[in-house]
Amino acid sequence: MGEVMSNSAGGEGALAIICGAGSLPFAVADAARGRGRRVVLFPLRGWADANRLESYPHHWVRFGALGRFCRIAAREGCRDVVFIGSVVRPALWQIWPDPAALRVLPRIIRMFRGGDDHLMSSLMKIFEECGFRPVGAHEIAPEILMPEGTVGQLQPSEGNRIDMALGLALLNAIGRFDVGQATVVADGHVLAVEAAEGTDEMLAQLAQLRRKGRIRSSGGVLVKAPKPGQDRRIDLPTIGPRTIAGAAQARLDGIAVVAGEAIIAEPERVAQAADQAGLFIVGTRQDRARTEDGAN
Amino acid sequence: MGEVMSNSAGGEGALAIICGAGSLPFAVADAARGRGRRVVLFPLRGWADANRLESYPHHWVRFGALGRFCRIAAREGCRDVVFIGSVVRPALWQIWPDPAALRVLPRIIRMFRGGDDHLMSSLMKIFEECGFRPVGAHEIAPEILMPEGTVGQLQPSEGNRIDMALGLALLNAIGRFDVGQATVVADGHVLAVEAAEGTDEMLAQLAQLRRKGRIRSSGGVLVKAPKPGQDRRIDLPTIGPRTIAGAAQARLDGIAVVAGEAIIAEPERVAQAADQAGLFIVGTRQDRARTEDGAN
Repeated sequence: MGEVMSNSAGGEGALAIICGAGSLPFAVADAARGRGRRVVLFPLRGWADANRLESYPHHWVRFGALGRFCRIAAREGCRDVVFIGSVVRPALWQIWPDPAALRVLPRIIRMFRGGDDHLMSSLMKIFEECGFRPVGAHEIAPEILMPEGTVGQLQPSEGNRIDMALGLALLNAIGRFDVGQATVVADGHVLAVEAAEGTDEMLAQLAQLRRKGRIRSSGGVLVKAPKPGQDRRIDLPTIGPRTIAGAAQARLDGIAVVAGEAIIAEPERVAQAADQAGLFIVGTRQDRARTEDGAN
Repeated sequence: MGEVMSNSAGGEGALAIICGAGSLPFAVADAARGRGRRVVLFPLRGWADANRLESYPHHWVRFGALGRFCRIAAREGCRDVVFIGSVVRPALWQIWPDPAALRVLPRIIRMFRGGDDHLMSSLMKIFEECGFRPVGAHEIAPEILMPEGTVGQLQPSEGNRIDMALGLALLNAIGRFDVGQATVVADGHVLAVEAAEGTDEMLAQLAQLRRKGRIRSSGGVLVKAPKPGQDRRIDLPTIGPRTIAGAAQARLDGIAVVAGEAIIAEPERVAQAADQAGLFIVGTRQDRARTEDGAN
């Protein structure tokens, strides 16, 4: 901590990026750099993509290395910190707390009782108390947000739009239970609701059920939306090339996400893959479902 | 139809039982016989257990054999008809309509747009119009309903009870979407929500996610409840020996179902299997969750 806390580029200082898996951490880093901001990456051991790290200043961290992060981030002149990339919720016993984390261990234990939102918002608070400011990846790089309208060539049918509205209303109704952010609806029939398994796994399971003939309808729409009241700084719903592959395997018609409230990773690859697979991808507004639901 | 519509045993006539898979059709048949009522089984081809049929008068039927069922059931003097045993929702193209079903085909096609409740209640209406009276299996055999309190030796912990209340509130909130009747909650965290896959498959997937380390918590409660407003004559949530095996594989602490509103198949085997697996099984009241939810 002894070093200079220099503030470069516009008085904002360097940006700390705690990196999970996938390409998004690098998209955010590139966007910040493009705006002239210095970035320091903190790849999470076991998750972050080591191959792409070389061209960025970075320091590996593991779950529970709170003291190490705070020390290095302060030395690097970071105040803003972004959490981005996918990470599976670790078990409590997988957190090896360093001395700084040990001091807040009782709070960490309490954090683990409840859903992901509860866990993440408690974690944000701990970072704030250590003097950092958690910011949303989309505040740094708004270009990663899903636009309104279609990505790729295909359009949803009228039936798909009805399924989308049903899916959005369902997600809105279960949001307060701090459960998943995705569902699959086909012909007015809810085929899957995401909980702890994550979207990719949900789609893989649906694909399997269809292959085995356990679900005998075809088509349908994957609908993703943020939970009502969800902290946008942490966990916006995300789609990327893997989501397209999963949706194609599950023989869906397309994917709908809430425009401006979901992240699209590698949009060009997504558009190309969707066209090849014959899927539509659409950024929709949430108003319609909310109104139907009588909430918000 | 030309034959006598004789009404035996208490003026109720014979009871037609349309049989899906599992032991429940036979439990209902035995209960009705025990009360002196004649039963005629209509095992569904591809689902009903052929080995156990011999000791009952029966006529095989397939999906779509509406005319055949009506003809034989009328000849057998049946007015009441029970649907019982598990059946996976067939695809529309798997229904080979006979001439009677052909006449209502446009309605059958419409039935398939929507959730299971919608499908089943439309089906009930068609049977009613053919002169039959659909009755709930639990009206014929109330002994198949889950009692209040524990089955087997083990009791839920205070933490399990909190998870139970959360699970019931969640099921209550999603009921109007005509989606699943089951969820798994562990330590305040919703791990799984049943949709089209069914409870056994949901538990198998959860077991797999835990084996693969994708879900790293342990314990939890399977909660099953009927949908609000669900037609009790068709589709009460059911647990049986297979549910216990599935819950054990998924490393849960136990199972909670709404007492008097869920069916327990083979209760002695369930109790024994639960004790062996170290699981609690409890019939709970729904009031608490409903009150917390501010609904009903």
